[in-house]
Amino acid sequence: MINAIKERIKAAKKEIPADLVLKNAKIVNVFSGTIQEKDVAVHNGVIVGAGRDYHGIIETDLKGKIVVPGLIDGHLHIESSMLTPSNLAAALLLHGTTTVVADPHEIANVMGMEGIRFMLRDSTSIPFDFFFMAPSCVPATPLETSGATLNAADLSELKDHPRVLGLAEMMNFQGVLMGDEQAIKKIDLFSDMILDGHCPSLSGPELQAYLTTGIRSDHETTVLSEAVEKLENGMMLMIREGSTVKNLEELLPLVNAGNARRCCFVSDDLHGEDIQQNGHLDNTLKKAVKLGLDPVTAVQFVTLNPAEYFGLKDRGAVAPGYCADIVVLDDLESFNVDSVYKDGILVKDSEKLVNFPGQNNVTSVQPCPLNMGPLTTQDLAIPYPGGQARIIETVPGQILTRLINEEPKSENGFIVSDVESDVLKICVAERHEASGRIGMGLVRGFGLKQGALASSVAHDSHNVIAVGVGDEEIVAAVEAVRIMGGGLALASGNKILVSVPLEIAGLMSTKPISDLVRQLKSVKDAAFQLGCLAEEPFMALSFLALPVIPELRLTDRGLVDVNQFKSVPLFLDEG
Amino acid sequence: MINAIKERIKAAKKEIPADLVLKNAKIVNVFSGTIQEKDVAVHNGVIVGAGRDYHGIIETDLKGKIVVPGLIDGHLHIESSMLTPSNLAAALLLHGTTTVVADPHEIANVMGMEGIRFMLRDSTSIPFDFFFMAPSCVPATPLETSGATLNAADLSELKDHPRVLGLAEMMNFQGVLMGDEQAIKKIDLFSDMILDGHCPSLSGPELQAYLTTGIRSDHETTVLSEAVEKLENGMMLMIREGSTVKNLEELLPLVNAGNARRCCFVSDDLHGEDIQQNGHLDNTLKKAVKLGLDPVTAVQFVTLNPAEYFGLKDRGAVAPGYCADIVVLDDLESFNVDSVYKDGILVKDSEKLVNFPGQNNVTSVQPCPLNMGPLTTQDLAIPYPGGQARIIETVPGQILTRLINEEPKSENGFIVSDVESDVLKICVAERHEASGRIGMGLVRGFGLKQGALASSVAHDSHNVIAVGVGDEEIVAAVEAVRIMGGGLALASGNKILVSVPLEIAGLMSTKPISDLVRQLKSVKDAAFQLGCLAEEPFMALSFLALPVIPELRLTDRGLVDVNQFKSVPLFLDEG
Repeated sequence: MINAIKERIKAAKKEIPADLVLKNAKIVNVFSGTIQEKDVAVHNGVIVGAGRDYHGIIETDLKGKIVVPGLIDGHLHIESSMLTPSNLAAALLLHGTTTVVADPHEIANVMGMEGIRFMLRDSTSIPFDFFFMAPSCVPATPLETSGATLNAADLSELKDHPRVLGLAEMMNFQGVLMGDEQAIKKIDLFSDMILDGHCPSLSGPELQAYLTTGIRSDHETTVLSEAVEKLENGMMLMIREGSTVKNLEELLPLVNAGNARRCCFVSDDLHGEDIQQNGHLDNTLKKAVKLGLDPVTAVQFVTLNPAEYFGLKDRGAVAPGYCADIVVLDDLESFNVDSVYKDGILVKDSEKLVNFPGQNNVTSVQPCPLNMGPLTTQDLAIPYPGGQARIIETVPGQILTRLINEEPKSENGFIVSDVESDVLKICVAERHEASGRIGMGLVRGFGLKQGALASSVAHDSHNVIAVGVGDEEIVAAVEAVRIMGGGLALASGNKILVSVPLEIAGLMSTKPISDLVRQLKSVKDAAFQLGCLAEEPFMALSFLALPVIPELRLTDRGLVDVNQFKSVPLFLDEG
Repeated sequence: MINAIKERIKAAKKEIPADLVLKNAKIVNVFSGTIQEKDVAVHNGVIVGAGRDYHGIIETDLKGKIVVPGLIDGHLHIESSMLTPSNLAAALLLHGTTTVVADPHEIANVMGMEGIRFMLRDSTSIPFDFFFMAPSCVPATPLETSGATLNAADLSELKDHPRVLGLAEMMNFQGVLMGDEQAIKKIDLFSDMILDGHCPSLSGPELQAYLTTGIRSDHETTVLSEAVEKLENGMMLMIREGSTVKNLEELLPLVNAGNARRCCFVSDDLHGEDIQQNGHLDNTLKKAVKLGLDPVTAVQFVTLNPAEYFGLKDRGAVAPGYCADIVVLDDLESFNVDSVYKDGILVKDSEKLVNFPGQNNVTSVQPCPLNMGPLTTQDLAIPYPGGQARIIETVPGQILTRLINEEPKSENGFIVSDVESDVLKICVAERHEASGRIGMGLVRGFGLKQGALASSVAHDSHNVIAVGVGDEEIVAAVEAVRIMGGGLALASGNKILVSVPLEIAGLMSTKPISDLVRQLKSVKDAAFQLGCLAEEPFMALSFLALPVIPELRLTDRGLVDVNQFKSVPLFLDEG
């Protein structure tokens, strides 16, 4: 390090040529809030000066283009992209993102610490910085079977990792408020680090009680008044623009000169298709500026502000001594990314990714085949006792579901899918401990006229979930997922029409984004062919197992009435 | 800690009474930039809520008074106050300061690591938080003899101390720019912590070269354009208002909504008399607001901003989860401090300090008697070779001096003090290694008609400095200082008129502020009685040994021409 510092000093003093000089830049200065026409000199991966008359081994004339610091996303679940960390990095670099703070809680629910270790391993040796937060809520609830339980003692191994910054979103805010021993222990363990929050709609004394623990951020805010209250109480307001949930438009009116430093943009959950089509933070910046946010303030939201919040003092600015994570933009309206430098190395030129290690650089992951036996149609049999059943009704475009009570269709004393009234059989098969446990239910909203969909992505415990018309079709789809060792599959009759392997924990593909998006499109198109009405069939399916969002969900342990936060039987008369 | 967190949650939810409720406060919210009328609830030393209807074991009605977070001074040398850390804390609490980040480089120059350990020790177990930066430049120059040399290996012991935040002001900016091995090693050692700067007038590529090392603050900025450049280059601008140097008025026009988060107020050097008469940051706030700064922004300058810079994430705001360092002000104009709470305990009521450990709680300091033999008049003899001498001329109100060449007065072939033309003999006697080394010179500006002043405070190496009319008087004054084991003394004839013991390293008194200020006043008055013209006689004297500020200085090794940064002889003909 000592020689590197000396070299940088010399390059800054122009005694030796810099590695790289970006000439004629318009630099967004996040400290002064101004835009300055200068050259940027870079040496040994670090910015050594912004001024004039530098000589560089490489000199690039930016011709007045805009220069901003590498963009930082302070809250993202890598697994939602179905890409490995390294493949996601490749995808995000194209959009100017150079740093992500990730919560690996999906893989942790499947593989525990080994999954987190994989994420750490796969995110090394790439020109992109993944930092991680220790998942705080694995499993998310006691109403389902996950692949691992992480208590405070387990997480302590992560504390000293140089890329672990603290405790990830404490989703169990009710537990915190009730003084739950494990929740408080985890908070205490990470109390000298960053504690991220997650507290939708929490307010008043309960919000403040949550904050007395040292938790300091929230990304679940959806209402303006809620945002005002959280910010005033000291929370870093992580305004979320993800693939499914978008809060920017609602929350932006909150921002003014007095509080702007306390806000940042995050994406939380981001899908491969969305990245390829719309981008990442570059797209959020464009939207924010279109909605009236000052462009320099907007840039601070994804650079200096998250860097300060996470204590990442080497990034978030284009200034001497900061790492040379630099994004060249066409302008501050379109936020079109012209080129990107990571640690001073060009990683995206005007057309494509460059200098990025081979796309198939996935670090070996401990194989984690689905731990479940083969399914049979007998497993799916639901004897009909008569009367009404609790049916899950999906709500288009939302992850919320409704609980409706209706008399289901039956044949020979057993429930069958009812294509006419769109009430289909759905199951969640336990896949972590080969218990053979299976939860059965009924769902309205998928609209399938034939066939079945199955997936090993089923929040948050990621058991295998399937919906379908015929029992043989459901069995075929689940079997395909099981044999692939995780993934998505679509069956018609007992034939598999399309499948997408998600070899890593049943959550992530080893393919690069372009291949994966192509696969996902084909499986989606096939679902539409079978009559599926859900806009995102597999995503809609994956959320039906999440027992923390109202109203009715299905886990491997059966139906959960989320409003009551308890298990309920399928039939009312059994209650 | 786990039970404490649980208790706080309960108090926040109003399930148990809070320890303390401050009712009817107008809280300055540093996050939103607004002022809010609420109650503040405190439990276990932590703020648990701001709202209404709390019940507290203690309830205090603030009747609409202003509440701000405890004030933070990000750069202060404790030794300049001549008070021990604990006695300084007592003095500063009265003015709303609850946290100080100190650079103990004065005592380090005398006692090395043992001195720093004393500062750490004496600042524990008091209701005040002293954090420390590891002194980067001990000794300050090679042109003088200090009591210790601290290299990177010595400083490494400090890295893991929970109250050490990083490396103190790197004054040797020329060394850094030249790649000085020790300077760079120290920077490298603390590169994952905070690196404070010190770079008066540094600009352009040299400033940027200095910053490539990761240094991130400056408190030596005196000119507006310099401040603009430093802030734009990523430095936290520490606007200094000390007892001698005041930069607020010049620099304040720089501040706007876009850059305000990058500024804070510090005092650097603060004298006991000044604290007692004018206060501390409370006084700076008053002045800043009078000069036009928005009061809430001003409060951020001494709360949230320095807390963020130093990564002190538990303080700097009145919000749930923050430590209950709370200052009650009469208003945001006078900034009169009504009362102060440290970690939820009242430490200043409307009249006086309360709940502060006894004033004489000085932790045992390893005695460090002056390591020097007795002085004789023979030691002070200056044979006159003829011709002109280099004379130090003081400049009233500044620490700058001028070099003048003049023929001095002599008798019997020896130089004598010349009262008529105010050219007096001055000496610096080495006190660290009993070398007997003494530097002799001549000074104009003190105006003494008789007597002598001696002091063991002589920046930065703190040898014993003395100025006087008769050699016997100089000897008497130096001898008094030597026998006291450090301090200030004033002699007339061979009689000591007044003296102030500074038992700790010859720099600090063990007395509380009121006693010390009384002593200092008596010694100053006595100096005036002898004809002294310097407004602050002993302070003016202490700076004459500082070989880093132009133009002519005296160390134990003789005269230093600071512009040339080299030793020069007293007489021109000897050159």
